[in-house]
Amino acid sequence: MKIIVQKYGGTSVENIEKIKKVAKKVIAKKEEGFQMVVVVSAMGKTTDALIDLSKEISSNPSKRDLDMLLSTGEQVSISLLSMAFQEYGYESISLTGFQAGIKTKGPYNKNKISDIDINKIKDNLEKGKIVVVAGFQGINEEGDITTLGRGGSDTTAVALSAKLNSLCCIYTDVEGIYSVDPRIYKDAKKLASISYEEMMEMASLGAGVMETRAVEIGCKYKVPIYVASSSKDIGGTYIKERDKSMEEKVITGLSISSDILMVTVNNLVFNSDNIATLFEKVAKENINVDMISQTSPMDEKVNVSFTTSKDELNALNKVMKEIKDENNEIEVVIEENISKISVVGIGMMNQSGVTAQVFRILADNNIEFKQVTTSEISISYTVASSDREKAVQILAKELNL
Amino acid sequence: MKIIVQKYGGTSVENIEKIKKVAKKVIAKKEEGFQMVVVVSAMGKTTDALIDLSKEISSNPSKRDLDMLLSTGEQVSISLLSMAFQEYGYESISLTGFQAGIKTKGPYNKNKISDIDINKIKDNLEKGKIVVVAGFQGINEEGDITTLGRGGSDTTAVALSAKLNSLCCIYTDVEGIYSVDPRIYKDAKKLASISYEEMMEMASLGAGVMETRAVEIGCKYKVPIYVASSSKDIGGTYIKERDKSMEEKVITGLSISSDILMVTVNNLVFNSDNIATLFEKVAKENINVDMISQTSPMDEKVNVSFTTSKDELNALNKVMKEIKDENNEIEVVIEENISKISVVGIGMMNQSGVTAQVFRILADNNIEFKQVTTSEISISYTVASSDREKAVQILAKELNL
Repeated sequence: MKIIVQKYGGTSVENIEKIKKVAKKVIAKKEEGFQMVVVVSAMGKTTDALIDLSKEISSNPSKRDLDMLLSTGEQVSISLLSMAFQEYGYESISLTGFQAGIKTKGPYNKNKISDIDINKIKDNLEKGKIVVVAGFQGINEEGDITTLGRGGSDTTAVALSAKLNSLCCIYTDVEGIYSVDPRIYKDAKKLASISYEEMMEMASLGAGVMETRAVEIGCKYKVPIYVASSSKDIGGTYIKERDKSMEEKVITGLSISSDILMVTVNNLVFNSDNIATLFEKVAKENINVDMISQTSPMDEKVNVSFTTSKDELNALNKVMKEIKDENNEIEVVIEENISKISVVGIGMMNQSGVTAQVFRILADNNIEFKQVTTSEISISYTVASSDREKAVQILAKELNL
Repeated sequence: MKIIVQKYGGTSVENIEKIKKVAKKVIAKKEEGFQMVVVVSAMGKTTDALIDLSKEISSNPSKRDLDMLLSTGEQVSISLLSMAFQEYGYESISLTGFQAGIKTKGPYNKNKISDIDINKIKDNLEKGKIVVVAGFQGINEEGDITTLGRGGSDTTAVALSAKLNSLCCIYTDVEGIYSVDPRIYKDAKKLASISYEEMMEMASLGAGVMETRAVEIGCKYKVPIYVASSSKDIGGTYIKERDKSMEEKVITGLSISSDILMVTVNNLVFNSDNIATLFEKVAKENINVDMISQTSPMDEKVNVSFTTSKDELNALNKVMKEIKDENNEIEVVIEENISKISVVGIGMMNQSGVTAQVFRILADNNIEFKQVTTSEISISYTVASSDREKAVQILAKELNL
């Protein structure tokens, strides 16, 4: 019998009424003859509320305890959803991350799935039960409850699909993947399909629909992923291996990220050891660095800039204090109102001129960018957040997205 | 180094401010040189709120899922309390029931602790950490998260103390054990000490301070238990092995239980098999039966009455429907407004006349009782709840409690 993994995010299970709707949607699919695994996130804003609660105790709470705290959110949803199935006359079993065999490693709050022991899930599917799995969480080698970071429920769903050889359906509050975030550009087009590579770029560049890591796992294990609305019954977007039709299109989408910080370290004595040390210190605090740029040396000194997520502000301040304490000539500037705009498309690999075209559009419209980075299939610019709106409208229009 | 286990109930950790107070209280004891284990319940009314949530899905939710749901309550408290310790500069570790090695068996929602693997707790105590354990929960042989029923956090604390050879301090919203519930009889006296046996009788007869099972474990493993106020710094009550001084007192206390149902099954054909079958059916639904009485057979038929907790109403209705379906001559009456009043005292073992004295007091004051049961150290009466207040006032006064 074929297995389907469905994942429902926090908005889709934010209250009892919605949980019941999810149950009915899953049951409809089961009635078509599929074995069903359902991955759920915490109800609505539960995770944020729990984080707020922890902040009342400490501005920088223990990360192990934070994982312990946050993981309760999904445990509540799985038990309620499982109750709903039983209320409708279907057998089900709710499983926390550790019960579902999800083993993780890495730093707390940002663990990665290292393996899944799929036996318990398979046994229960064989018994005809709907299996309800807590997203976002697992257990590490020390037996600690861990979480996978924001968007971690997607990762759980895709990783389970990989192990179960199944389709992975991500039901969410958007209707699929758009060329541009429709909240920002209202004429954005919904894509019928997108390649893993493009989606990874889009995700890592800020398109809020799916976490990069989840798509990465999908790509690695060739898991077909379907992203669609949890409330409306209309077609969504398939994320799959790239095919010819996709390559004809030069640019697939525009991705916008507003939650970023730009850090500039001025007057750093120029030698590679110095710069390596800087980033080692940053890495030690588990801060993910995104774009890096460096000025040419002048008087044997350089300025190094990098971007990171706003969430890292606490950790970042700590590292920067250390660095300044060691060398008081160094000056650190942290800019908070920075946005990143990225143009993504597999077609860019085989077609030159896109970079030039984008530079031209920005220049003609007096939009100043602070940093540029490029990959095989994307170009990213950081701009002042005040220029974001304008830049998106113009780029989306000019590139026909 | 000496270990102390402290347990704080839901009221003591109902908000962040109170959690911080608990942390300080534990730290003060640690500073005296003790290794500290802290058992906590869910914050305030969390457990009730979770039960209400489940009722929105089903009037009779799956018990396995209910355990899954309820256990999140303590998981939230342990993580927050552990964060508080770290905020105050003390190393700590939060452990769920399964992480703390608490193995259970039995029916969901009413599991019993079968064993505790104490190694993880011991290791962490040796490392100087304060160990914070989720009360009320454990894990069964199938790897399901289980709960120990109401008051289960006391059981966790006493069972841990038994394994760790430690004093067990139960901090609660009352100041100790009273001869009579002070909310009902304002002149009640606080006891400096009480024997395990008396406390078990008091607890099982409805004195809300501690669960019978917790005291039972304390008695079995000779764990010294100290019950005191979590907010006020005044002396509490020791529960310990009985000594001479206790035996001098004939009656130690009065225990009142209002949450009971009385079920009467009329027109049951009198043979022992019939009656055994009745109670087998009741037992199959995990309904705890308390007092049982039976009329003399008349026309080969008898009436059987028994009392049970109000919580069992759902399960009870189910069993009674079955019984009536099998024999439509049978009539079932469920009375909901019943209270039980019990007189408890170790001294009663060696002194006759207490029963007569109590009957006389009730008769002189026109208080009708429905059932009477006696044990070596207690006498219990069920009365209409409307008579409860009057009966308690008169008995407490006449017996000088």
